[in-house]
Order: sequence, then structure tokens, then C-alpha cells
Amino acid sequence: MAAGRVYSAMRPSGRLHLGNLFGALENWVRLQDDYECFFGVADIHALTTLQGTAQVAEIVPNTYEMVLDWLAAGLDPERSVLYVQSHVPEVLTLSMLLGMSTPLGWLLRVPTFKDRVRQMGEDEEHIPYGLVGYPVLQTADVILYKADRVPVGIDQVPHIEISREIVRRFNRLYGDTFPEPQALLTESPSIVGTDGKNKMSKSLDNHIELAATEEETLKRVKSMVTDPQRARRTDPGRPEVCNVYALHKIFNPHLLDDVYAKCTTAAIGCVEDKQQLADGINRYLGPFRERRRELAEKPEVVREVLADGAARASAVARATIAEVYERMGLAPR
Amino acid sequence: MAAGRVYSAMRPSGRLHLGNLFGALENWVRLQDDYECFFGVADIHALTTLQGTAQVAEIVPNTYEMVLDWLAAGLDPERSVLYVQSHVPEVLTLSMLLGMSTPLGWLLRVPTFKDRVRQMGEDEEHIPYGLVGYPVLQTADVILYKADRVPVGIDQVPHIEISREIVRRFNRLYGDTFPEPQALLTESPSIVGTDGKNKMSKSLDNHIELAATEEETLKRVKSMVTDPQRARRTDPGRPEVCNVYALHKIFNPHLLDDVYAKCTTAAIGCVEDKQQLADGINRYLGPFRERRRELAEKPEVVREVLADGAARASAVARATIAEVYERMGLAPR
Repeated sequence: MAAGRVYSAMRPSGRLHLGNLFGALENWVRLQDDYECFFGVADIHALTTLQGTAQVAEIVPNTYEMVLDWLAAGLDPERSVLYVQSHVPEVLTLSMLLGMSTPLGWLLRVPTFKDRVRQMGEDEEHIPYGLVGYPVLQTADVILYKADRVPVGIDQVPHIEISREIVRRFNRLYGDTFPEPQALLTESPSIVGTDGKNKMSKSLDNHIELAATEEETLKRVKSMVTDPQRARRTDPGRPEVCNVYALHKIFNPHLLDDVYAKCTTAAIGCVEDKQQLADGINRYLGPFRERRRELAEKPEVVREVLADGAARASAVARATIAEVYERMGLAPR
Repeated sequence: MAAGRVYSAMRPSGRLHLGNLFGALENWVRLQDDYECFFGVADIHALTTLQGTAQVAEIVPNTYEMVLDWLAAGLDPERSVLYVQSHVPEVLTLSMLLGMSTPLGWLLRVPTFKDRVRQMGEDEEHIPYGLVGYPVLQTADVILYKADRVPVGIDQVPHIEISREIVRRFNRLYGDTFPEPQALLTESPSIVGTDGKNKMSKSLDNHIELAATEEETLKRVKSMVTDPQRARRTDPGRPEVCNVYALHKIFNPHLLDDVYAKCTTAAIGCVEDKQQLADGINRYLGPFRERRRELAEKPEVVREVLADGAARASAVARATIAEVYERMGLAPR
């Protein structure tokens, strides 16, 4: 008996990296043991920031690569519903209806919206209407499936809060229809990128892809920034400020004491140390990469998984929309 | 061969009145001769300003009463597609996608939006997100059916302008997909209500219902405000400032000279004059009311008309969404 229903989604960003694996994907795999899970490819969300044919042309191939990663990492299409957001357009119906009772001010005050406005270097006026409504669409994503749990990091708790407000207002206006989504707080190690500074991210090109070959992985690891004070091989290093050491904690826990001793006494150099880390990563990802290779040989698998997921998601979605139409007094067809 | 495709819609406001007949409905009936027409019951638009179960509970009965008026007035479900907006939820999909490329600022500057904010006595922040997006949804309504003509009065031309901007931007981003809607300017007499001051409107309760009985019509006409300077029966009247006279132009053109002469010489009193007007209105609406009575005896007719309309509208809508998905690079299901 599942403890509840979980909803989560990722934008179709193509091949995932170590940051995605530890920030979300491994957690998703575990959640399957305790919850009924809906995992979405958020292609409509991607459209809020992509503009024009060239950019959106990436969505389909990126979806394919990402879902390969999902399956190889252990998302189980027998237990969980894996689907593409735009295959279940009922989410847009629900989002529009929720938007009728969501004040514009709530949306303009969402911290991530303000950040986005700043990032885009524009004033609010130039932001697309669709992007303003992002939190409404996110709410619709979750409650379309009557999910009551959303795995998030602490920085995303404000999103859950606005979702709860939107749901509360709907329930008050039209009667108790949806559960208020709750944050399933996830403590996951924040993975720093190869630049040694920023969170690992594809857009900063400081990432290590899960599906990389062993050679590509070694090359990426070799490019990692270590302790900037260790200029010469003979200088002792400071593991506590070194991202290579931070990653050893995940990939080479058995070597930690040894690395610490040898680094701080300059008994090992960064080059050698990085080789050890690359070996650890490649060992860790070995079974994943083997499964991914097998799946990639049968491209129809991803298609079938997503078609089946869309069918299962649609059945739930249609029932929800029928209920909402009835609640809101919209004419049954 | 139709000269183009027309789209227009009305909110489900229940029984229509003389203002609706001359402001829109008679024009719609005529347009059927030259255009392929889609006429919608805009129930989703109604939700932008209705809140809560009690208010929305009116939508279904209001839809029924309004469509009875449509049919009685001569909208022909064989030639035109008569349907309920929420029966074709593809419009919400399209609206959402259009919203991704519509700047918030365009919407906040629409004159009718600013009026609405003022009317509601609130600042922009409290306006529902859905209401802000009204022009986007209106655009989707029209172009979902690839309609290229929208019958409007001069005051609504700014709406067509913003629709054209939204369409131009979409076409530029994703390739030529939609025709730019054009205003079909309609010069229709503006019908003043029984208060002699304001445009006839249900919300001001200064209206005369098309479906009223002859007695109700007479009662409403008797309540009409005439020339305020004609205090006594023996005072001469000023037809040019009298709304009863204005309505004679429509309903009793053959009596105009006679009424003018008798009113300005006090040869006829307002009570008698109003009786003549009520007779004229009742005569004009006689065939309409007879058809409406017959239709009301078969309540399944409206249901069947709307089911057939939804099926025909859906077929066009699904084809448009499939094309848009392909253009935008969204994964085909």
C-alpha cells in the first residue's frame, strides 16, 4: 500500500549529469519503493524560456536522451508513470482554470520569478505571460494527478507554498477537490562542478555526464579545479577546499582517509588523485552505463514507455478534469 | 464558396435582450450567408470574473437559454458551428502556448483591462492571472479555427490589434501558421436601456428580454424614461432626446413622422406612445418568440445542436493543435 502519490518532473535537458543524479534521480528511484510516482518530462515548462523553432527543435531528442538516463538509473515504468507533459494536455486546461482564481500579485512575488526577471535583464513587462504563470502550471502538474507529495530541496519550498495557496483557494471556492501538496524535503549533497565553484550545471559546462565514456569522464575530471594554493606538486593540499576530495566522499569512501593523509603531506599529486576519482566515478556508473547501452540499442523502448505512461496519466487526468468541470459548473459535454 | 471564416462568441448570460439582438445576433445571422461561421458560448471567459460555485452554477442554465435565443433568431446549426467553449479544451492548450510568447506588458496595457481594474476597485496585483490573459484566450478562440474575420464594434478594435500582434509573433517564431484575424467592422445601432441613459444591459436591469411575454414587454416599455422636460401630458415632447422615439425608428418606422408630429405638439401622451412602441416590439419579435416557444418544447434540440457543434469544432481544433505541436517541436504523442 503506497504511502501517498508523488509528483516530480524535469525539463528535457538531454543527457543528465552527476548533479542531476544526486540532486534528484537517485531520490526518485528510492521514492518508488514507498509511493505511487508520476514523473514528468516538463516540455511545456521548457517553452516558457525557449523561443523559436531552432531552440524547441531540441526538445524531442533531449527527451529521448533524458528518459534513457531515467530508465538506466532505475526508474521503473511498471511501477511509476513516466510521461511527457505535453502528451497530457489536460494539464493546460487545469492550469487555465486555476489561473482564474490566482491573483497576479502572488505570481509576481515568487522569489524565483524575481530572480528570472533579473537574470533576463528585463523588467516585468517584457516577461512572457506564460512564464509569469509558471507556478500555476506547476501546481496543475501536481494536482492533476492528485499527488500530495512533491520531492524538493529547501530552496524550492516557496513553490510548494504557493501551490498550497492556489489549491486552498480553489477548494474554498469550489469545494474540497484537491489535496494540498506537501514538500517531501530531500537532503541531497549539492554537487559542485568541475570549476570548483558553482553548482554542477549543463549551462555552465562544468558538468560530468552520466552517459559519458570512461575516457570522457577522465578528461572532465582532469580539468577539475583543485586547491588553488597547491601550485606545485610538492605543496601540501587542503582537501577541505578541494572538490576532487568532496567527490571522493561519494565515489571512493573507502579511500577517504588515505587520500586525506597523502594530499595533506603531498605524498600524492592532483593528477594521480584525479585518476583515482575518475576510476571511482566510472566504477560507480558502470552498471548504469551498461543498462543505458542496452536500452539505446532498442530505441522503441523509450517510445513505448512514454506512450504507456501518457495513456496511464491521461486516464487519471481525464477523471480529474471531469470532476473539476462538474465542481465549477462547466457544461458537461 | 465562403468568403472566409468568422469567429465570434458571447458569454453565457442567459436570455438575451434587444441590445444583444441589434448589437450582435442579427449581424451573426446575416454573416452566415457569406462566411463559414463559428459561434461560441464563452463559458471559460465567464470564469475570469465569476468566482465560486453559486456564481458558476448559473452557467449551464444560462447557456441553454441563450442558445434557445440564438436558434430562434436564425442561427442555423446546419451552416454554422454553434458550440460551448469548454467542450473544446484544445483552446486552453493553444492559449497556454500563445502565452509563452506574449509579453505581460502587452496585456497590462489593453484598455479594457485597465477599465476592469478600475471597475473592480483593485490594483493590478489582485486581478486574477486568468483575467490578465483574457486577450490571449480570445486570440486562441479565433485562431484555433483558423478564422480570419471577427465581427466587432469600433470599441473592440484594440482587441483585434493585440490578437494580430500575438499571431504575428507566433508566426515569426514558428513559421507561418495562423492567419492574422481581421476586424469585420459592424455598424449597429447602440440600444439605450429603459433608463434612457445607459447602453442596454442585463447587469443594469434596464433591458427588455427578447423572450419576454407581450405583457412583460409592455411593462418594461412603460417604465422607460422619456423626455425629462415633459412633466405634464400637455407639455410638448422632444423626440430627439427620447429613447422611446429612438426605438420607434427600429420597431415602428412607418409611424415615425406621425409620432414626431404628435409628440412635439402634445397630441399624444407618453403612455399612449409607449403602448405603440410595445406593440411594435411585440410585432417585431412575434415570429422569434413563436420559434423559441417551439424549440423550448424540445429541450433536447439545444443539447443536440451543441453536441454536434462540439464534435465539428473539435475536429478542426485537434488538427490545429497537431500542426502547432509539430511547428513548436513538441513531441508527437
